[in-house]
Amino acid sequence: MAVGEFPFPDMPPVNGVSLGTVGAGIKKQGRDDMLLFAVAEGSTVAGVFTQNAFCAAPVTICREHLQTSSSRFLLINSGNANACTGERGRTDALQLCESLAKQYGLAKETVLPFSTGVIGEHLPVDKMQQALPELIARVTEDAWAAAAKAIMTTDTRPKGATCTLELNGVAVTVNGISKGAGMINPNMATMLGFVATDAAIDQSVLQTLVREVAGLSFNRITIDGDTSTNDACMLIASGKAGNEPVVSTASVDYQKLKSAVADVCMQLAQMIVADGEGATKFVAIDVQGGANHEECLKVAYAVAHSPLIKTALFASDPNWGRIVAAIGYAGVEGLDASKVRVRLNDVVIVENGCRADSYTEEQGQKVMSGERISVHIDLGRGNCSELLWTTDLSYEYVRINADYRT
Amino acid sequence: MAVGEFPFPDMPPVNGVSLGTVGAGIKKQGRDDMLLFAVAEGSTVAGVFTQNAFCAAPVTICREHLQTSSSRFLLINSGNANACTGERGRTDALQLCESLAKQYGLAKETVLPFSTGVIGEHLPVDKMQQALPELIARVTEDAWAAAAKAIMTTDTRPKGATCTLELNGVAVTVNGISKGAGMINPNMATMLGFVATDAAIDQSVLQTLVREVAGLSFNRITIDGDTSTNDACMLIASGKAGNEPVVSTASVDYQKLKSAVADVCMQLAQMIVADGEGATKFVAIDVQGGANHEECLKVAYAVAHSPLIKTALFASDPNWGRIVAAIGYAGVEGLDASKVRVRLNDVVIVENGCRADSYTEEQGQKVMSGERISVHIDLGRGNCSELLWTTDLSYEYVRINADYRT
Repeated sequence: MAVGEFPFPDMPPVNGVSLGTVGAGIKKQGRDDMLLFAVAEGSTVAGVFTQNAFCAAPVTICREHLQTSSSRFLLINSGNANACTGERGRTDALQLCESLAKQYGLAKETVLPFSTGVIGEHLPVDKMQQALPELIARVTEDAWAAAAKAIMTTDTRPKGATCTLELNGVAVTVNGISKGAGMINPNMATMLGFVATDAAIDQSVLQTLVREVAGLSFNRITIDGDTSTNDACMLIASGKAGNEPVVSTASVDYQKLKSAVADVCMQLAQMIVADGEGATKFVAIDVQGGANHEECLKVAYAVAHSPLIKTALFASDPNWGRIVAAIGYAGVEGLDASKVRVRLNDVVIVENGCRADSYTEEQGQKVMSGERISVHIDLGRGNCSELLWTTDLSYEYVRINADYRT
Repeated sequence: MAVGEFPFPDMPPVNGVSLGTVGAGIKKQGRDDMLLFAVAEGSTVAGVFTQNAFCAAPVTICREHLQTSSSRFLLINSGNANACTGERGRTDALQLCESLAKQYGLAKETVLPFSTGVIGEHLPVDKMQQALPELIARVTEDAWAAAAKAIMTTDTRPKGATCTLELNGVAVTVNGISKGAGMINPNMATMLGFVATDAAIDQSVLQTLVREVAGLSFNRITIDGDTSTNDACMLIASGKAGNEPVVSTASVDYQKLKSAVADVCMQLAQMIVADGEGATKFVAIDVQGGANHEECLKVAYAVAHSPLIKTALFASDPNWGRIVAAIGYAGVEGLDASKVRVRLNDVVIVENGCRADSYTEEQGQKVMSGERISVHIDLGRGNCSELLWTTDLSYEYVRINADYRT
């Protein structure tokens, strides 16, 4: 189940960024479950990671390797998260980094490992090591579609987005792929996003860029409120486009690049929501009129996480009472209910804290029967706003998550 | 669907507390949907109410009437919450208070109104007023079972509990009824609880008592994390038992009474969980070893509200990785994952932050297949603990909440 269509785009190569996939037998179905990014010498790589205290072994290792060495490889597996696997989980991931790096005569710190899948089981390291030579042999600049498939778990569709721009007359490409369908409340959350560009960008500027764009995209989606142990959003810049390197966040080039990367990441993030486990609706929650950003987010998350609202969305039921109840318990200090206004798309349902005089059940029904619904909430107490994207809660969500391991 | 059995108990009369029910046609099915408590002159009445900013008209009125006058009547309806109904909602509720009080030659402030049901629709005041004379005529001391039925909405079973105790040689009775099955995360939430005793208790002591026992019972349950607009827990003390009035919270009588009332309220609260919408499991979440109570509650609520954990519970799947992920994102500052320990009933599943060596999938499966599951979490960083009760998330939950208004 998924909302709407998003055919996989034609993705051009990103000069300096090669990738390949292989099936190592981690997943039962014999699908490709390992992905390797090989990036040209001189590339910069930066990322943001899950804030979960039980972050997986590969997340810890990524953080360390990014500190100590220039990254040349991103080694990703699906089917097993290598999370809550203790010291052995760490040893397993490091061993794979070392085996891969050795093939290229480099140090293990040049490899960044990523895992997504079931928590608490050990990686099948032997199988994965045996698959490495074939994985390396397959690396090419034209494998973006295969890459997007190899990182899927409960996703029903591969997710990719691309755009091109010019930096001072030089053509630059930005490609991105992502995966994620459940345990999605990134901050960062098993959301994985890999974005690559051939632009030349200074390492510290790249780190700022990835943090800023994740804040606008992957950190503004939630499916079930469960922040995973493995989330990561990575940004690779090969520098092969030949542009004047971007060395300052104050530059025009930075703003242009940020806008392009943010566009790719927002597309990828919204694809994750549209492919959310059991999703039948794509829901934008837009909270305005807050006294500060924090209270806008509190209200948006309360609405996005309410099982009662999510089931009403699934039923196409304009049960707006559940929306105002969630606004009411979101924890906004001193909220004046009589100033609250709620619209579904362009239909005003709540005004002055109660049902709008103009509202009819038919109008609400019509909006709710669509696949794309915007919930606009005005708190009437300030000028701050926040926007989140989420899904409904369907029988299918329960089925997927009740059956996941069986 | 509901977990286990809880036959309605034989409830003795509470001297000085009469009650009656009638079907006013608020609900479609022709069931009794109005309940009246008439309490003897000289009784004390106290309550705790929802913290929802969109609290319903009757909640606001209750708070005002409790301030201004001695309460003689509790007038409750099911089928309509009279919430988010603006000024008219308030006028409607006050009119009913006035009509009732007039029949007894008293002021409207002696009436406390309560409503539960659909949000955002106006009360059918005419029908309700027409039903008042019959309601009054039916009032008796022996209608506890009918009363528990009249306040049900999506509940599948009436909920009652009773106990007796002695205060300084004087026999005292405590009776309670409650309702609630969804939108349950009381603080207070459409949870309603009415507890009556014939003990004599000073008004201010009664207020402390109801706050304390709600904190131990109704405020420690959550079904879907949705705090309702109408929650209330009321405590009535008629004083007819003839005991020396309880005038201090430091007295032995207070402690004895608190223990009895808490016992009744905990039974009622646990019945609400066991009758939770679509519930197939009764789950206790016991967090220990916290540095403070707040962080224990954060962890307990993160686990209780995780849709991934709730669906795994429904599937009897010991997917403990989802439990540690929730502990990890609960927001406990500086949590050391390697000190965390998790047990399901008596089976240790997580030790030192990863799967216990002794753990086998068969053990986990066995525990999870039961109807009653205790999740014991030790954070390993202090001496505080907290306990919550919750349910799983089933197809039936989705069905009930997707169909509620259709």
